[in-house]
Amino acid sequence: MTALHLSKIGNKMTNKVGVRAIMHDIQEVLNSDLNQYVNLSAGNPAILPQVYEMWEEALRDIVNDKQLKNLISQYGSSYGTHELIDCIREYFFTNYRIKLDREQVLITSGSQNLFFLALNSFCGTSKEGRVKKALIPMLPDYAGYSGVALEESVIEGIPPILSKLDHHTFRYEFNKQAFKDKIAQDPDIGAVVLSRPNNPSGNILSEEAVQLISQVCKNYHIPLLIDSAYAPPFPAINFIKMDPIIHDNIIHCMSLSKAGLPGERIGIAIGKSDFIKVMEAFQSNMLIHSSRLGQRMVVNTLKSGKLPEVSANYIRTHYKQKHDYLKNLLTTCMPDDIPWYLHKAEGSLFGWLWLEGLPFSDSDLYNKLKAENLIVVPGGSFFHGSQSSSHNRECIRISLTATDEELKKGIHILSSVVKKIYSSNTILETGKI
Amino acid sequence: MTALHLSKIGNKMTNKVGVRAIMHDIQEVLNSDLNQYVNLSAGNPAILPQVYEMWEEALRDIVNDKQLKNLISQYGSSYGTHELIDCIREYFFTNYRIKLDREQVLITSGSQNLFFLALNSFCGTSKEGRVKKALIPMLPDYAGYSGVALEESVIEGIPPILSKLDHHTFRYEFNKQAFKDKIAQDPDIGAVVLSRPNNPSGNILSEEAVQLISQVCKNYHIPLLIDSAYAPPFPAINFIKMDPIIHDNIIHCMSLSKAGLPGERIGIAIGKSDFIKVMEAFQSNMLIHSSRLGQRMVVNTLKSGKLPEVSANYIRTHYKQKHDYLKNLLTTCMPDDIPWYLHKAEGSLFGWLWLEGLPFSDSDLYNKLKAENLIVVPGGSFFHGSQSSSHNRECIRISLTATDEELKKGIHILSSVVKKIYSSNTILETGKI
Repeated sequence: MTALHLSKIGNKMTNKVGVRAIMHDIQEVLNSDLNQYVNLSAGNPAILPQVYEMWEEALRDIVNDKQLKNLISQYGSSYGTHELIDCIREYFFTNYRIKLDREQVLITSGSQNLFFLALNSFCGTSKEGRVKKALIPMLPDYAGYSGVALEESVIEGIPPILSKLDHHTFRYEFNKQAFKDKIAQDPDIGAVVLSRPNNPSGNILSEEAVQLISQVCKNYHIPLLIDSAYAPPFPAINFIKMDPIIHDNIIHCMSLSKAGLPGERIGIAIGKSDFIKVMEAFQSNMLIHSSRLGQRMVVNTLKSGKLPEVSANYIRTHYKQKHDYLKNLLTTCMPDDIPWYLHKAEGSLFGWLWLEGLPFSDSDLYNKLKAENLIVVPGGSFFHGSQSSSHNRECIRISLTATDEELKKGIHILSSVVKKIYSSNTILETGKI
Repeated sequence: MTALHLSKIGNKMTNKVGVRAIMHDIQEVLNSDLNQYVNLSAGNPAILPQVYEMWEEALRDIVNDKQLKNLISQYGSSYGTHELIDCIREYFFTNYRIKLDREQVLITSGSQNLFFLALNSFCGTSKEGRVKKALIPMLPDYAGYSGVALEESVIEGIPPILSKLDHHTFRYEFNKQAFKDKIAQDPDIGAVVLSRPNNPSGNILSEEAVQLISQVCKNYHIPLLIDSAYAPPFPAINFIKMDPIIHDNIIHCMSLSKAGLPGERIGIAIGKSDFIKVMEAFQSNMLIHSSRLGQRMVVNTLKSGKLPEVSANYIRTHYKQKHDYLKNLLTTCMPDDIPWYLHKAEGSLFGWLWLEGLPFSDSDLYNKLKAENLIVVPGGSFFHGSQSSSHNRECIRISLTATDEELKKGIHILSSVVKKIYSSNTILETGKI
């Protein structure tokens, strides 16, 4: 039997990155003995009673609706259902005074698919043979952007400025000048993409920074994709104030997954109708449209006003408390004399830990932790191949979706492993002298 | 404002083909005055009470299930849910004595997406720069295969043999020799793809023909994709006996859309784990997984045994009757002395009408019919760019999903337009002499 022949695209798309790369690994170890491992890798949102009950009620209402048959037994528009699009328009007008036409809203099969459609439409090889890239203004950022790209090496990023805020806290700062220089010097930027709040770090780019990025993009006619999967109005996992920023050249990208509906795969893109039309046609050819039951569930929770309310009152609070708890745990358990830094808590559902001077790579650390029954996400893939700094191999992502007990158990394991690493490393260093 | 820059892929994917190309047109005319037009273009299955009630019950059971929260509030495996995969395995073992491993089944976001994953993995530009094509053994076939391809000109087809069965009936016959020659002579075939029953013609390739195609594919290590969107066990829209054919090099592709669940987008691929693994990774990167509510609904209807039962007893019967009705209408209304031929009714939910010697193209006919308030699908795009014969521009697809009344109204319009065309053409021809 000869080997399977794959296209270039087929080869590219069989590579999983980020958390998806270790997913198989995770499944295997978790299946082997459920109680043995502490899993702090999950991107799955915690199932909060208030959130879940909202979705259950939404579904119950659908079942009792006489129009159900038209919903499940009919194909729909590739833009999404009119009712959901109109709900989104109404929400943005009422709450942000932003007026949207129907053609400015696209419902996708989840946020992952939204970026698949957008990045592969605006980036990649052009008719003229040039490869247009997607630029991340501040690394690290969601590993899935590299995952969705149909071509290799399409994602590039600007290294962040590392700012130590105190003994064990740091924050990424946006390198404005490097961004402006890059855009000015590189004619092959097809799109700019960023998550806000940021996955993995929890950083929230300031409004000023986003306005600057948007203005630069506008000057160069580059669409700016703002991944708002953790942003208000839903799931509203922001711990500092932020609002959606909508401009003519921005594609504002929302997701229902972190608001408790990951199973149904619903994403929402808002932008200029020219952009949306391209993505709609791509979606139409690729999978026709997303789940209509899921779309109706979102309609119900928007009409009742529950979705933004539950997001702000329960989801946000939950993760803020979790991050506080994680920080306390780290402060209590981790050796004070080791240069560990937790990224400032601004949003998202992750803790992002930097172990400065880690004597080996993040994936080695991943394996060492796995050997001690702790699963975290190694941070390297969030730097999208950038070799700018050793920092890129010194971070891990800790999920805040675990229970307090799991977090506690996990951080104890982490601390003991880290202690050993740094003490043996000190010996090693001393030995060298 | 400069024009929108798109990648080659972006440009390709903004082109809609087949029924999707005229969808906008259809929506516009239908929105303008719902009562004015007769729409015989729809690919949407008719909503039959027995079918719809089955899905409604399945959904009602889900809402009453205590495990609902794990279903909607959690991400799942990109292979699909274990419970659905196991149901499929059990069904195939019980009914066809085919033993499948879990890794041989993939749940996709609908059948369209299944072909997107498969065709773009196995066909398109390879690392070595050669463009591998997907070969259709007998044209016409589903226009969407060209639609899902990320690159231009990836789909090729073998022209059929036209066999007139009687004064107004014809059937496509598979040109074995041409197929064998093509595969032997062209080293750049990456996959073979066919629908069985065939969309648009309703032809069902004989088991013998499929076995031959499969054997040739096997000899050349080419995966064979069999699109079973209209096949038994569901939706079972076959009017002559046929069974699924599963071999090592076949990817058997199923859909829930024509069994009444188009809104949820559920497709099923069955094949060698090597093939499935590639498609699973692609799906994982592209959209994570398909709707979990939809997957559970399918589980419920498979476990109760209703899905295959309702398919065989109601769905199949419904479309068989519709096709008989269409044939009667055509026989009654269409002029007997015009060379019109309806493809033999073997399956699918379409009538496929050949107007031999049509003096202009199928899209001209589409426009003439539209002017008289009838919408059908022009047949040209089902030939995927093949210029093999004038036949390729002489066909239209008539949907059997309409009511009897609509069909009657539609065929009356068609007949009167066709009469005019052929009579004026005769005059024209006579005038020339």
